[in-house]
Amino acid sequence: MQKVLVIKIGGNIIDNSDAQDLFLQKFAELKLPKILIHGGGKLATELAAIMHIPQTMIEGRRITDAATLKVVTMVYAGFINKNIVSKLQAQNCNALGLCGADANLIRANKRTVKDIDYGFAGDITEDGINTMFLKILLENEIIPVISPITHNGKGQLLNTNADSIAGAFAKALSALYDVHLIYCFDKKGVLTNVDDENSVIKNITNNNIDLLKKDKVISAGMIPKIENALQAVAFGVRKVTIGHARELEDIVTGNAGTTIH
Amino acid sequence: MQKVLVIKIGGNIIDNSDAQDLFLQKFAELKLPKILIHGGGKLATELAAIMHIPQTMIEGRRITDAATLKVVTMVYAGFINKNIVSKLQAQNCNALGLCGADANLIRANKRTVKDIDYGFAGDITEDGINTMFLKILLENEIIPVISPITHNGKGQLLNTNADSIAGAFAKALSALYDVHLIYCFDKKGVLTNVDDENSVIKNITNNNIDLLKKDKVISAGMIPKIENALQAVAFGVRKVTIGHARELEDIVTGNAGTTIH
Repeated sequence: MQKVLVIKIGGNIIDNSDAQDLFLQKFAELKLPKILIHGGGKLATELAAIMHIPQTMIEGRRITDAATLKVVTMVYAGFINKNIVSKLQAQNCNALGLCGADANLIRANKRTVKDIDYGFAGDITEDGINTMFLKILLENEIIPVISPITHNGKGQLLNTNADSIAGAFAKALSALYDVHLIYCFDKKGVLTNVDDENSVIKNITNNNIDLLKKDKVISAGMIPKIENALQAVAFGVRKVTIGHARELEDIVTGNAGTTIH
Repeated sequence: MQKVLVIKIGGNIIDNSDAQDLFLQKFAELKLPKILIHGGGKLATELAAIMHIPQTMIEGRRITDAATLKVVTMVYAGFINKNIVSKLQAQNCNALGLCGADANLIRANKRTVKDIDYGFAGDITEDGINTMFLKILLENEIIPVISPITHNGKGQLLNTNADSIAGAFAKALSALYDVHLIYCFDKKGVLTNVDDENSVIKNITNNNIDLLKKDKVISAGMIPKIENALQAVAFGVRKVTIGHARELEDIVTGNAGTTIH
């Protein structure tokens, strides 16, 4: 099967223009077929403040009322997405910016209200990824750049977690491609000591995860990410790597980051 | 040659949600391959006011400083574009929202400063339309929905007039397709009496344009639009129709609007 890289960058890279430019240069240079998924960062919070739209975050998730949905649609699908695309185009990377409504790329359901009403937050449906459309783009050497706005197919846009989109893309594409899913952030990987950048755990597998958890080597915040990664691997994704955005080439070649396989 | 409709809607349809919904329903129902180009409307001006970014308009053109470019990128390429796409998707129209940076669709140059500095305003370059990419989309029955943001290929987004984009698309596609260019607005066509909606001039050609101008039948504001339309026809576009958004089917079949051919 043909190799495809599914790469996610988070807010900490988007918010820092030098880090973003460096990442985009490294991304443009990668020779393999690739897909970029970007998060939001502080810009949406800043715009909401200017517009006097109060923001509520619960466990790192934004409560998306109607006014906030407008803000995130403008910031994620508009400003951030189109600026990334134009910067990649300037490096001869034929990027195409998309949100989940475009060509019905990502179908989601509005999250059911249980204890918390997340508002217009979307959870990706089973078979919600339009892999046939992604295949057309990849065959034409077009690089999809995805903003974390999805739709329900009934005219409603929804705010969706970018980590979840990256995971869903990797799983759906694993039916057609040999997928390497990469989460880029501002640490070199999963660390045994958060204060020591060189304490990267190189490999996590089903064989050592229980031991790492039992010995509290992995911080609590990292466990859901790693369990998601193990689930993606169980689903057919070849491997998942978590690492620093500036080490992208080495992550791709297997020489940096924490790899879950 | 295969027929293609290139349809432009202006701010007066975007600003009115009933008019917009009615138009999108009619647009979704059209059976021919089609491309939608949308303008901006009042939303950008409203957001700029909330953000305390002063706006200057000269002869209907927005002076686009850096802060205003951010506003129009968010509003046109983000909010308006993605809402149109999700509404079309709800009507089983496989829409794909794009700006000019996406897949290098529209290349433009920053307008040279002569008497007026328009800021980040872009004029489409010769051969600036990526017709090969549009062909891939049309062959896959994907409906492009274009926002009036372009790029210079060097990482700079630019604000570009939507009428000019529609004209450039029609001309570029006329090499491959039999193109009907349609400008939808809130009048039934070019009127001999602006107060009488039924005074539509059915046909304008090179044979009667001079007479219509001499007799002042056409208002001064309409003359540049009509001359652009005649120029498009001279370039190979089959015909150009100017008409009311709610009469879209009749415009397509030649039973409404003013046709320039």
